[in-house]
Amino acid sequence: MIKYPTKKKTYRKPRINQSNRGMGLEKLIDEANAHYLEQNKAVIHKKPTPVQIVNVAYPRREMAKITEAYFRKPSTTDYNGVYKGFYIDFDVKETKHETSYALKNIHDHQIQHLRRVQAHGGVAFILIKVDRLDTVFLLPFERLERYLKRAETGRKSMTLAEIEREGYPIKESLAPRIDYLKAVDSYLKTRQKR
Amino acid sequence: MIKYPTKKKTYRKPRINQSNRGMGLEKLIDEANAHYLEQNKAVIHKKPTPVQIVNVAYPRREMAKITEAYFRKPSTTDYNGVYKGFYIDFDVKETKHETSYALKNIHDHQIQHLRRVQAHGGVAFILIKVDRLDTVFLLPFERLERYLKRAETGRKSMTLAEIEREGYPIKESLAPRIDYLKAVDSYLKTRQKR
Repeated sequence: MIKYPTKKKTYRKPRINQSNRGMGLEKLIDEANAHYLEQNKAVIHKKPTPVQIVNVAYPRREMAKITEAYFRKPSTTDYNGVYKGFYIDFDVKETKHETSYALKNIHDHQIQHLRRVQAHGGVAFILIKVDRLDTVFLLPFERLERYLKRAETGRKSMTLAEIEREGYPIKESLAPRIDYLKAVDSYLKTRQKR
Repeated sequence: MIKYPTKKKTYRKPRINQSNRGMGLEKLIDEANAHYLEQNKAVIHKKPTPVQIVNVAYPRREMAKITEAYFRKPSTTDYNGVYKGFYIDFDVKETKHETSYALKNIHDHQIQHLRRVQAHGGVAFILIKVDRLDTVFLLPFERLERYLKRAETGRKSMTLAEIEREGYPIKESLAPRIDYLKAVDSYLKTRQKR
């Protein structure tokens, strides 16, 4: 058999995966966080993407260029910080699905992390944009957890009606556009009542 | 004038700078955090190094290799999380200096961040290893701030005696070796007394 020389293929494709699905909403959350910081309302930041750095070159003095690195698996959620003395921790999701949100989009490491945060007295939730309803909801982890439990033996998703019932809707405002701390306030009120 | 061809220089040097100075202690803090997570005592993580990703190649399907990226300036401290419902936020420092710690080693963005955390009810501090005393101290930001204030017009460093007086010493133990949450407990007790 003759082996023809083959051109070595290099795949270059845009990263379209789960973790990018929340991009549109993420921008709005970054905007809200910048606003909160500036208005001295809260200190909440997005965590950098975890990267394993293998090689760094110095094309010029005082200029470090990373020439080889790999994405590492995150072990937490993307956002955390402090608001009114509370530890705040959340992730951002989006669903374009017409009728429900598949729970498999919330990764195991995120679930485990939010469960721990909740257990240690932090305020754990997800912000989920439901395109069909054109609304962002704050869904407290303690409520989400019931549906994760149900998914073990039954339905693997939450219906939009369930998200509406369990979540706190965030009305779009001017600045910031997604003023999610208002929904945190509403949630904290019900938490304190218990 | 004849221009001789010159070999393009590429500097490759280990990153020896401020941010690496705390490396030895950082490892011990990472160890402590892993221990706390496993023992269900607290959820505290180190933040990833912020990196601006410019180019990603896919030498194989499902394998992303970052081929060009740059270090970004961090806007926060390296560690945060939740302990007993408190938002915890700190950075790690080391001093090999015989008699004092130069305050310029605490960067402006770290000071600004810790000040904000403090204002929003978080527990803000630095962990500082004083080689001379072979001891790690938890130095609450509210106390450190007095010396930052003094540095505006006077002395630009803290003496080791001042660090000993203002800080909470952390005795080395077995597991974890630097059980810094004990010092957090001591600090919280004095905070609550006020």
